[in-house]
Parts: sequence; C-alpha cells; structure tokens
Amino acid sequence: MPGTRLMTNADARPATSTDTLLNGRVQLIQPTAGYRAAIDPVLLAAAVPARAGETVLELGCGVGAALFCLAARVPDIELVGVESDAETARLARENASANGVGARVQIVHADVGAAPAGAFARVLLNPPYLEAGAHDPSPEPRKAKAHCHVDGDDLARWINVARTRLVHRGTLSLIHRADRLAVILAALDPYFGDVRILPLWPKRGVAAKRVLVQAAIGSRAPSSLLPGLVLHQDDGAYSDAARAILWDGAALPLEAP
Amino acid sequence: MPGTRLMTNADARPATSTDTLLNGRVQLIQPTAGYRAAIDPVLLAAAVPARAGETVLELGCGVGAALFCLAARVPDIELVGVESDAETARLARENASANGVGARVQIVHADVGAAPAGAFARVLLNPPYLEAGAHDPSPEPRKAKAHCHVDGDDLARWINVARTRLVHRGTLSLIHRADRLAVILAALDPYFGDVRILPLWPKRGVAAKRVLVQAAIGSRAPSSLLPGLVLHQDDGAYSDAARAILWDGAALPLEAP
Repeated sequence: MPGTRLMTNADARPATSTDTLLNGRVQLIQPTAGYRAAIDPVLLAAAVPARAGETVLELGCGVGAALFCLAARVPDIELVGVESDAETARLARENASANGVGARVQIVHADVGAAPAGAFARVLLNPPYLEAGAHDPSPEPRKAKAHCHVDGDDLARWINVARTRLVHRGTLSLIHRADRLAVILAALDPYFGDVRILPLWPKRGVAAKRVLVQAAIGSRAPSSLLPGLVLHQDDGAYSDAARAILWDGAALPLEAP
Repeated sequence: MPGTRLMTNADARPATSTDTLLNGRVQLIQPTAGYRAAIDPVLLAAAVPARAGETVLELGCGVGAALFCLAARVPDIELVGVESDAETARLARENASANGVGARVQIVHADVGAAPAGAFARVLLNPPYLEAGAHDPSPEPRKAKAHCHVDGDDLARWINVARTRLVHRGTLSLIHRADRLAVILAALDPYFGDVRILPLWPKRGVAAKRVLVQAAIGSRAPSSLLPGLVLHQDDGAYSDAARAILWDGAALPLEAP
C-alpha cells in the first residue's frame, strides 16, 4: 500500500501518496487527488528513442513519472521537465532526488510556452486529458481546464513549442487520446515527417483509446501506421508485451517488427 | 484464366481481360494494362453501410468493381459512378450490363468535379494511387499523373466534392494509402464527424499499407481507430476474415466488434 501524507493547515500541501513504477525501480510521490500517473507516462518513456549523451525535454512533466522511467532505462541522458503548477513542480524535484537522478533531471516551473530554449534531441508530451465524452468533474471549470487537461488548440500549441526546441531530425514522442489523431497530425504538418502512429489497443478487437506518436522534425519520410500494442488479455490481465514494458522496463520502439 | 481481347487497329480499343470478383458473382472486363482492380474495391464495397432504397455515388469508379460488388451485397440500391476516362466509362457500362445491374447503375463520363448534383446517402472513393515511394513508371508523366493516381491535393478535392453530394448525416467511405491519413483527416475536418479508421494490416505485426475510412457529414461524434483487418496469414494465404469478405461477400462494418 502506498504511504499517504495527509494535508495539514501547517504546510497547506495536498495529501500525497508514494507509488512505484517499473516494478519498484521508480518511486513517485504524487497527490492523492486529481491527475495521477498510471501507465501512460511509462509507455511514453518506453517509446522515446533516446540514446546516451542526449538531452531530453518534457513539456508538462507533472510529478516526473515519464522522466524517471526514461532515466531508469537510458543511462547518461540529461532531462529537463517543464511544469506550470508550482506544487507539482516541487513534487517533481522531490521525486528526482528520491530516485537518485537529481543531478541529471532539471525541473523548471514555467508555462509550457516559456520552456527553456535549447537544442533537445527528444521532446516528450503527455498532455493531460479527459476521456473522450467525459464531462469536467471540477466545481471550478476554468481552473480545471487550465490545469487538468488540454483541448485541441492547447495540444497544437504544445506541439508547436516542441518544434522550436528540437534539433534538426530530433524526435517528438507523445501519448494522447486516439480520437485526437486528426489534431495531432495537423499540428505536425508540415514541419515533421516520418510520423509513426502506434495504437494502444485496450484488448484485441477493441478500438484504440490512446495512441503513441513519434515524428522527426525536418524529415520527409512517409508516415506509418504501426500494428500497435494490445494492453490486456481477454481475461483482463496485462499482455506479455505490456508487462515487459510496465514491469521489466522494456523499450517500445515505434517500428514495425 | 481470364479471356483476353487483343487491341486491333479496327476499333483502337485497349486489350481487355474478363476477371471475376466475389467468387464469380461479379465479372469485370478491364484493360490488361494500367490500373486493374484488385482487392481494394471489394474491401471498400464491403465497408459501405448502404441500406435498401438508398442512392450511392462513386467518384472515380473505374470499370465499376466497387459498384458491382456493392450491388451484389445490398439489394434495391441505385448507384451512380463518375469516371473521367471515356474508354474506362464505356467498359463500366458494358460491365453493368454483363452483371445484370444496368437498370440500377448509371455511369457518367465526367471529371470528378462535374459529378451530378444530388442527395446521395453514401459516397465511395477509391482514388488510384502509386504505392508509397514508387516512381511513376509511365513515359508520359503528365498523363499518368492525371489518369493513374491522385496526389494529396487531388484527394482533398475529391473529398470536398463528396461533401457537396451527400445528404445530412450521409456517409463517405474511402480506401487509400495509410501514409496519407493526415491528408484524409485534414480534408474531412470540420465538415465530417464520427470518423472511423480501419487499418488494413497485410499480416499480423506489420504496418498498415492501406486504411478504410468512413465519416458522417454533420456528425459531432468523436473519431475512432478500429482494430482493423489482418489480410493474410503468416503463410501468405488470405485470413479467414479477408476470405469471408473477398469470396463470400461478407460485409466489413466499420464498428468495433
């Protein structure tokens, strides 16, 4: 069971719990309420084709789940995370220390549009979203809209920021709702090429809820629609392929086998 | 073996062969050279959600393969095919008679943009294309471009024509290269909704070469990325699901099972 720290008036910090990812290789302090890292950031980190020596940027890094999973898999990379919520950014820094990667992970408290300039080999995006058709549960709709999910316009803006931070032929990796594929592809055009779409199938024979997308800036290579990953067996347990990624920390290259 | 009629100077008509589709239920006279109907029009026709009493339009119908396959599956529909090449349109009419559907299939020799006005419940598109990365084999590139394949701009134009011929909530069904998905989705936006993407996987675990796409004009429903159809088994034979469509004339509804 995760340990929980309840909110007190003394520090006015939200209650948090400590959870683990990648079979305990990553630990994550995160708020017990609101958005909580599930499997999306783990899948995203598995998909990033980063190599040792590269510098990687995540826009909207939350408490750092994807950054720490990536750091656990690829040695000798430098990571920068941008997070617009101050308390979340603070937790991300705390998590970086707890995971022993404080020296190579920098967390910047800033809006996505004010992400540090730089020449990054890889940019990651895991924009928070509501499930398709879900209604905003928050009693403060404006705040919820700003902090808890992005709409199609925001998504295009995030992709545009990513574009301006990548080195030539650098790659963007993102995970998002499958029903937003049109927005994603439109925002990538015409700056990115070699667009690779990897559908995430909840079970075999079921429509994809999310997609992983990778694109290379400046490339003219055609796009590809990859076979994708079936997440669960018919009995509801994770598939062997999903387990290898989520437990054993396997990579999920966006290539046809 | 198909029967072949060789070109003679007397009628200056290209050599043709007679082939069959749907296990002989459809016969097709088509030129022995140039574009020849393979499985694409059969898959497209299987995907069209037409019901008895409806009127259906195909833009760029070629010699009529998709129209006749659809007529064989759905009774009591009226079909209109538009074909810009005179000789091809003539063959399509000949094929309509040979398949006993001359009374309910009308072939119009016209450019796609001059397709008859009307309120069609369904529009079909199977725009001819070169395989991704293929180079134009024709010694007359301009003519080949005009007659043998469409580029991204043409594709958007065809979709735009389809839009102006559909009744409210009428559906467009198309089959095209998977690497053109961005162009397809961009051309559908914002007029169409309920966009359904069905990848056609050559084999399990291989990137999709083509996609079937269905969209409803005026709909606000979210798009969906469906599990798709695996065409071939590992040994190269058609899969059972593909065989049911190609031989037995089964429908291929664009719905998650």
